[in-house]
Amino acid sequence: MTLNGHSLIAGKTTAGTGGTTYGMNPATNEQLEPAYSLLTEDQVKAATAAAAEAYPSFSTLEPEIHAAFLEAVADNIEAIGEELITRAGQETGLPAARLQGERARTTGQLRLFANMVRQGDFRGVRIDPALPERTPLPRADIRQRQIPLGPVAVFGASNFPFAFSTAGGDTASALAAGCPVVFKAHNAHPGTGELVGQAVVKAVKDFGLHPGVFALVYGPGASIGQALVADPAIKAVGFTGSQAAGIALMRTAAARREPIPVYAEMSSLNPVFVFEGALKGDIDAVAQQYVTAVTGSSGQLCTSPGLLFAPEGEAGDKLAAAVARAVSACSGQTMLTEGIAGSWNAGTEALGSATGVDLIGKGLEGATRNAPAPAIFGTQVRDFVTNHVLHEEIFGAASLVIRYTSSQDLIEAINRLEGQLTASLQLTEQDYPTAAPLIPVLEQKVGRIIINGWPTGVEVGHAMVHGGPFPATSDSRTTSVGTLAINRFLRPVAYQNIPQELLPAPLQDENPWKVNRLVDGKPEHG
Amino acid sequence: MTLNGHSLIAGKTTAGTGGTTYGMNPATNEQLEPAYSLLTEDQVKAATAAAAEAYPSFSTLEPEIHAAFLEAVADNIEAIGEELITRAGQETGLPAARLQGERARTTGQLRLFANMVRQGDFRGVRIDPALPERTPLPRADIRQRQIPLGPVAVFGASNFPFAFSTAGGDTASALAAGCPVVFKAHNAHPGTGELVGQAVVKAVKDFGLHPGVFALVYGPGASIGQALVADPAIKAVGFTGSQAAGIALMRTAAARREPIPVYAEMSSLNPVFVFEGALKGDIDAVAQQYVTAVTGSSGQLCTSPGLLFAPEGEAGDKLAAAVARAVSACSGQTMLTEGIAGSWNAGTEALGSATGVDLIGKGLEGATRNAPAPAIFGTQVRDFVTNHVLHEEIFGAASLVIRYTSSQDLIEAINRLEGQLTASLQLTEQDYPTAAPLIPVLEQKVGRIIINGWPTGVEVGHAMVHGGPFPATSDSRTTSVGTLAINRFLRPVAYQNIPQELLPAPLQDENPWKVNRLVDGKPEHG
Repeated sequence: MTLNGHSLIAGKTTAGTGGTTYGMNPATNEQLEPAYSLLTEDQVKAATAAAAEAYPSFSTLEPEIHAAFLEAVADNIEAIGEELITRAGQETGLPAARLQGERARTTGQLRLFANMVRQGDFRGVRIDPALPERTPLPRADIRQRQIPLGPVAVFGASNFPFAFSTAGGDTASALAAGCPVVFKAHNAHPGTGELVGQAVVKAVKDFGLHPGVFALVYGPGASIGQALVADPAIKAVGFTGSQAAGIALMRTAAARREPIPVYAEMSSLNPVFVFEGALKGDIDAVAQQYVTAVTGSSGQLCTSPGLLFAPEGEAGDKLAAAVARAVSACSGQTMLTEGIAGSWNAGTEALGSATGVDLIGKGLEGATRNAPAPAIFGTQVRDFVTNHVLHEEIFGAASLVIRYTSSQDLIEAINRLEGQLTASLQLTEQDYPTAAPLIPVLEQKVGRIIINGWPTGVEVGHAMVHGGPFPATSDSRTTSVGTLAINRFLRPVAYQNIPQELLPAPLQDENPWKVNRLVDGKPEHG
Repeated sequence: MTLNGHSLIAGKTTAGTGGTTYGMNPATNEQLEPAYSLLTEDQVKAATAAAAEAYPSFSTLEPEIHAAFLEAVADNIEAIGEELITRAGQETGLPAARLQGERARTTGQLRLFANMVRQGDFRGVRIDPALPERTPLPRADIRQRQIPLGPVAVFGASNFPFAFSTAGGDTASALAAGCPVVFKAHNAHPGTGELVGQAVVKAVKDFGLHPGVFALVYGPGASIGQALVADPAIKAVGFTGSQAAGIALMRTAAARREPIPVYAEMSSLNPVFVFEGALKGDIDAVAQQYVTAVTGSSGQLCTSPGLLFAPEGEAGDKLAAAVARAVSACSGQTMLTEGIAGSWNAGTEALGSATGVDLIGKGLEGATRNAPAPAIFGTQVRDFVTNHVLHEEIFGAASLVIRYTSSQDLIEAINRLEGQLTASLQLTEQDYPTAAPLIPVLEQKVGRIIINGWPTGVEVGHAMVHGGPFPATSDSRTTSVGTLAINRFLRPVAYQNIPQELLPAPLQDENPWKVNRLVDGKPEHG
């Protein structure tokens, strides 16, 4: 595919007049061709206006066409072939195997949502039939369904150039809900964005959909982002990125005349709690798994464990020593951008120089640029609960081992934590009495609790929650991974006493879309 | 029951040190005994702290006890008997029959939510079983449920002293979700609030629940309200009232370090669209129904129709004349407070003196104080779309008839409307071709569409939506009436690879609470 270096608005290549940017290869700090033109705030309005125009037809699309469109997006992404993996590798420094896995996950997500569109439960159809004989007052026929909120602005993540980007989870779930999407391309991987964007635009065209269904816009992050969120045509926002950027978007959305929901996934320390029983087995294995979770993808995962609570005493000492050995064998891998590597350096320097914090193990510098040596620090629970610096997320391959003496220590530490995506417990049966009272405390702080596993590797399924209390996300009532994610982009409407001819298809008696429905509170198969 | 004139915190009568207020009889402008002591902002913290303490036990209550507790609240409210109707009548000016109906609705809501607690679908249980043989990676066992958000602050409405107040819909749905409630009493009906509050506190005590499960707090509205919403212990807000007050709470909630959801139901004009066919039948009946909907409960209903669009021409003229006749036979009824009557006077004066607006019919002053004559005004669609004054809600028995000539006029008018709770259409089969294209346009503006009915009288059921886009509510993704309302107070948590002994009851293989569950995406009966 040819990279044009421009935004895609209403199906057309649109040159921006707000300057240019380039993709950069973080392994070499070299610039990648072509230049990407940036839109001005005014130019972005063409995308939001087209999305608003596309809404009436796209939001009412017949399910089979709607589902086939999502599948075509997946097919088109796969059809790009090796070029996509190559370009994404150049722009992100991520290895090909990781990118191939991520691409499979991305197309898998699109196909999962296509199945949901066909199946139709997300339409939330409820029918309370009329009760004309009821006293003292008759009941009218009332029907409910969920309709799409409207055009959605999606902001992609630096660390998942496919799965949380152009046609990633937010875009897939918004499109599945029936919402047109204006996607703000991430400037760290503009070429990857364009390749995937072209794949989406081709599907829109091939299915004869309104061209406003999808736009890919390049622009200076802060100003274009704020303009998108403030635009009255936009009705919801999906975002994955830093806490500062996420909070800025939340503030803008809340300050609108019509406030809109922002689904921002921001930051998480993903604490791991190691109990005594887990250290009676293979301590080296626990240490190795931890270091692998910390250093995989250069630690640039939302669910990478930033904290490990280990007991004081001999077994805990052995674990710390095994962690030190394991990390010393790790080489740094290229980070996503020079800026991110710089932030990692600043973060680890601040942590390493905090009172009561020591470096307990360090790996080797990588052979490329921006590939710092993974680092694991150690401290005591007393220092953790009193020093906020130890609660700052360091994006990248760094983590902090915290030594504790009692489960009261753990409860105190958990209560000091802000909201997290995950918490993990390493234990055996002997630890159940100690662990059991922690679970309800953890529920208040996280979106997912894991036992004898590690938080990285987020399964895409029906039961997954990739979310959690603020600041892990802006809205703990949702998830950005898994089928429940579609609910973020829907709202209920009731229809009272509407004749069949005027009812939307899924609410008609004949049930032409064969959706499951709740009739008088009881499930009825479609 | 004895009225103590104080707040109820953690099961105890708590005298406020922030001054006093009195209930007022709006029919006479006379003060009602006793005086009510007002809490300071500091005193309110005792209620939120107790609610936070109550959360762990209340949020995990066994369903049968939880449901029986809600039913006991309903029983206790009924057991107050005539005293409750009398006091509410004195404080609100609402007639006994209306209050009896509202009480039945309130206790019916509590019993409906009790049934939901027993039935358990709101727990949203999903189980994705482990796939240990899957390649390239096995899948862990992942389970999901919805947990209660935490303590909820509820603000009652002036116009529904039972159904949207102390133990009204917001309180009932929050308690059913498992959230402790801190209820800010409405100062317009403090005695009614205390009677119902005592009924709730008695049930909490009789069931041996933590006394922090429910608090009733009196205070100066603005400062106590802001303090409650800013309190870190509070995790969600339910509110019914004015747009100004609702927006102030939304801003406070959004400015917290941890922003929280605010479910505010604020203002709505509830437009009615009359089509040509509807005027070929009994015009007087349409006019009478409209005037009844406008003047019932002195027009002080969230869904009272503030706008009626009628066609230009002879039939429309007849309708306007019939409306004028019907309203001239109506007497004013006591409004809820002197302040509300004053706002009604100011609002109708502003509307009546707007360019292009005429008074088309007026009723009679009521015999009591604060019982202004119902008034219906008329204008043209041109004036409506250009003058924002004509879009201001007038709370009380006033409405505006807008004459239109084409369905293009209607689409333009609808597009100018802000979000509404409802829209109603009066039509016959001949109007279907004209009405059909309006329905998707209306869906973007309202939470409920009604054909050949009137928006007043909100059914409590599974399919009801009492909600809508801003400023009808702060969050169009929800409803404050009907069973879906419980979802406002829940969030999902995932449990990965958790041994049976450590799983919450509804997620255990044995399914001791017999809830329906989604297993691998397929429904399984409990």
